[in-house]
Amino acid sequence: MRNIIVAQSGGPTTAINASLSGVLSEGLKNCNKVFGALHGISGVLSENFIEFNNYSETISEFLGRLKISPACFLGSCRVKLPNHNEDLEIYKKLFKTFEKNEIDAFFYIGGNDSMDTISKLAAYGDSIGSPIRFVGVPKTVDNDLICTDHTPGFGSAAKFIATSMLEMAHDTAIYEVPHVTIVEIMGRNAGWLTAAAALARNEYNTLPQLIYLPEVPFDKKAFINDVKAELSKTNNVVIAVSEGIKDKDGNYIQNDTATQDKFGHTQLSGAGKALELLVIEELGLKCRSVELNIVQRCAAHISSKTDLDESENLGRMAVKFALEGESGIMPVLKRLSNNPYKCEIEFSKLSEIANKERLVPRKWITEKGNDVTDEMVQYLKPLIMGEIIINYRDGLPVYENIAHLY
Amino acid sequence: MRNIIVAQSGGPTTAINASLSGVLSEGLKNCNKVFGALHGISGVLSENFIEFNNYSETISEFLGRLKISPACFLGSCRVKLPNHNEDLEIYKKLFKTFEKNEIDAFFYIGGNDSMDTISKLAAYGDSIGSPIRFVGVPKTVDNDLICTDHTPGFGSAAKFIATSMLEMAHDTAIYEVPHVTIVEIMGRNAGWLTAAAALARNEYNTLPQLIYLPEVPFDKKAFINDVKAELSKTNNVVIAVSEGIKDKDGNYIQNDTATQDKFGHTQLSGAGKALELLVIEELGLKCRSVELNIVQRCAAHISSKTDLDESENLGRMAVKFALEGESGIMPVLKRLSNNPYKCEIEFSKLSEIANKERLVPRKWITEKGNDVTDEMVQYLKPLIMGEIIINYRDGLPVYENIAHLY
Repeated sequence: MRNIIVAQSGGPTTAINASLSGVLSEGLKNCNKVFGALHGISGVLSENFIEFNNYSETISEFLGRLKISPACFLGSCRVKLPNHNEDLEIYKKLFKTFEKNEIDAFFYIGGNDSMDTISKLAAYGDSIGSPIRFVGVPKTVDNDLICTDHTPGFGSAAKFIATSMLEMAHDTAIYEVPHVTIVEIMGRNAGWLTAAAALARNEYNTLPQLIYLPEVPFDKKAFINDVKAELSKTNNVVIAVSEGIKDKDGNYIQNDTATQDKFGHTQLSGAGKALELLVIEELGLKCRSVELNIVQRCAAHISSKTDLDESENLGRMAVKFALEGESGIMPVLKRLSNNPYKCEIEFSKLSEIANKERLVPRKWITEKGNDVTDEMVQYLKPLIMGEIIINYRDGLPVYENIAHLY
Repeated sequence: MRNIIVAQSGGPTTAINASLSGVLSEGLKNCNKVFGALHGISGVLSENFIEFNNYSETISEFLGRLKISPACFLGSCRVKLPNHNEDLEIYKKLFKTFEKNEIDAFFYIGGNDSMDTISKLAAYGDSIGSPIRFVGVPKTVDNDLICTDHTPGFGSAAKFIATSMLEMAHDTAIYEVPHVTIVEIMGRNAGWLTAAAALARNEYNTLPQLIYLPEVPFDKKAFINDVKAELSKTNNVVIAVSEGIKDKDGNYIQNDTATQDKFGHTQLSGAGKALELLVIEELGLKCRSVELNIVQRCAAHISSKTDLDESENLGRMAVKFALEGESGIMPVLKRLSNNPYKCEIEFSKLSEIANKERLVPRKWITEKGNDVTDEMVQYLKPLIMGEIIINYRDGLPVYENIAHLY
């Protein structure tokens, strides 16, 4: 291929730069020029490019450091591309930019919304007979893309969640007075991340005793009964709860008023806080809520090696598929076995993936809806395996310089 | 010495078990029996003991794992010992227990309240001519004990805070729209932990741009002006704020109603949330608040090696001082130099330490009260240095079994 462009879009994870590292290493081997567009599709429109061939002297060091760095080295955006029958001009402009820069392939690393963008570009390209290849590269902490066993970034966030949950199990075990700790975990519609709290259980730890995912309608009365039942067994009850739990009518369980972002996604806060207040009101005992917040998606110092290696390979394979002439596709992970864990990389059509959401199957949640099943634990376990090597300077992890984002 | 007892008290840190490990290793070398009382002074009263001589076969493995495990292996309590002229019976009972178990020294690992307890025991012992030695071992994430350069647990919490702050600096840098992130950090009266956020700054990162500690009265108008000034320079403003910031009249800046625990400490929540709502109201832009909560004090997987080594040595030295006949004392750290960092261990009298609080000196906070000085950074820097070696199993850190706390 002549030149290629890669960009990143959507919310950050600790693995999105590993995929970028994969695209770059394979791209630099096989193409003339490798451009990175800053801030997703916006950077393509404004031709705000970094040229990675300039990094050649120190490229292997750079790629290694990039692989373990959190968030998006190229910045991100939340621009949603209109359909080409709604706004043809933007498509014409993008393709003119591609042509001018002799671009043979465009790689977009992102989640649901980003796959919609790249899918639309591929479809438009097809309609005008363009030879440019459009390939999506998956990422999302939420693990909610379809056609793939799991998504880059999820395993690392799951590892941080399980580790913090284990550490909080130690922290909360020290007092003899009855108390409840509620840990709110990311997940608007899909409970995958919250389910990862179950991985903290081991030969001495049964915490969290209760896990509530958005896939099952949340009932406050049943919840209080669940908490009472646990308190009859122990003084220390820890509960993992998704930010997106809703009652049977679909109303979010929350303390604050929900606001909507421009994709129509509801910005949530306060499921944990709402339950904290409920427990205090109903049971009159000490209760604390902890929101893992953005820390859970950027804790790169404890990334899963499995996750970063897979993410890097997905980036490499995206380039390989493009070299083989594929377009309108996304490399996906197909699990071959759990023990030993083995995943291979195939690809799926973007048109099948975009704008769809993969929720936790009901059968992986217990009948009462307050825990996950062993099948879920077996699914999650391999994804947090392995530790990465981080260099520390002055006591802090050495990540890649992001001064160019300012 | 014949037998000794050790116990832990107060809020957990990731270094309190390192001090326990130090007491145990030195105690097992020099004493007949080493008892651990479960749940602090309550466990002494009820003779709820673990006998560590029983661990002898696997003691070195156990001590190594104990050193890196978060929270309190022996559990904790929040019992405040009354003065002996208020309740003589409790003292008589405690000394009878000591006598019955042939105890020559009692070691209490804890913070302000725990030093009050051990100080009272030492004073009572003196008054009845008891030969039993009473030695405190410092710990507190808050770094607010006097007579010591810093306290065990603080450096590890500071390392997690600085690391998370750096990771959040990456996470928040990716979008082009103006936004503000407020990170609420522990510290009721002392701003040491919040100051540690400044360590995240490096050759490419200036975040957090603003830092507010409880030592300086918080002014909402000045705060909004500070935020505006930063927003005129960049789209990404990150602010570190202590949970305990107060206005000039001493009222906490918070969203929720404050409640008091039985020591009269105010339980806070919501400084970050209150400022988030203030920014949205006053500036009308995207703002998020993140509360690091208990995660910051139990993130043992990223403990500071300097902190754990010092904590272990303080535990060892506590036993050595007792062997030398000292009582009513606490081993303390005295910093000899910053570069190279060097600290030695001396001891101070408990009567001088108990119930006092070491705040951040005003001169280590900038004149405007919205940042810390370079002197503060130089003080903090050595305390987060060094990484510990953690064993992982199934992708998670291997900590010491705490089943005996249930």
